[in-house]
Amino acid sequence: MAAAPDPAPRTREQRRRDTAHRLAHDVDLWVATASADGAPYLVPLSFDWDGRTVLLATSATSPTGRNLAATRTTRLALGELRDVVLVDGSVEVLALDELDAATTDRFVRRSGFDPRADASFRWFLVRPTQVQAWREADELAGRVLMRDGLWLH
Amino acid sequence: MAAAPDPAPRTREQRRRDTAHRLAHDVDLWVATASADGAPYLVPLSFDWDGRTVLLATSATSPTGRNLAATRTTRLALGELRDVVLVDGSVEVLALDELDAATTDRFVRRSGFDPRADASFRWFLVRPTQVQAWREADELAGRVLMRDGLWLH
Repeated sequence: MAAAPDPAPRTREQRRRDTAHRLAHDVDLWVATASADGAPYLVPLSFDWDGRTVLLATSATSPTGRNLAATRTTRLALGELRDVVLVDGSVEVLALDELDAATTDRFVRRSGFDPRADASFRWFLVRPTQVQAWREADELAGRVLMRDGLWLH
Repeated sequence: MAAAPDPAPRTREQRRRDTAHRLAHDVDLWVATASADGAPYLVPLSFDWDGRTVLLATSATSPTGRNLAATRTTRLALGELRDVVLVDGSVEVLALDELDAATTDRFVRRSGFDPRADASFRWFLVRPTQVQAWREADELAGRVLMRDGLWLH
């Protein structure tokens, strides 16, 4: 059983703390992408977070890899259906050897897999432009935590 | 704590039973859509399932409502990041008064909200064309449960 939800809507400060905790400690997130002609796609992937950028790795030939490279945009979801964090971001694609060793090692430790084992893989760096967090309908107001790449205070 | 995952990959039969249970009993799912020009979108929504069709309701003016109406396609995800059910489907849009009363009442009971309270809402009927289910990497083989609208046996 999950803990009972807090009956009061969380403050923005609390949502930022909860969001920072998820970004620092969760292992997987949902990656929503679209083809250039509007076909939606969605898969769970492992990730890392360095405080500013979400790091993903997937095959350049997978639908997600192709969509990220083509559109350079994604919406990520962390958490659960009634405790969501949604991250819209722009995407940079790097070859496997273009990421520094410390960042690579950190991803491998956190995710439990090494993308360098598959030459078709690429790194995808997602820079958040908008972040939202809410649990239930009563938290829809005040759900925007970042806008235009800036955390709100 | 979640229960420890079963160490053996599930059979297709077991995945179909687990998927049927989620469709029959879960309240929310992830709805991934795309704009016609390739902007991805993702939100959690409540749903109902009558054994053949996933029923959603959202505002025609929301990004999800606009995307569903424009592209007539979606990818839905039920469950959790390490126990996923992915449903690709085609979409039919109905006005609020075009759905029969029994189906409408069932949706209201299951979701806890009545879309008829907001005139901007529409019904979106998602007919699955492909269904996949897996927990961890060892279940990626055999993940397809429905193809071209037909459950595999």
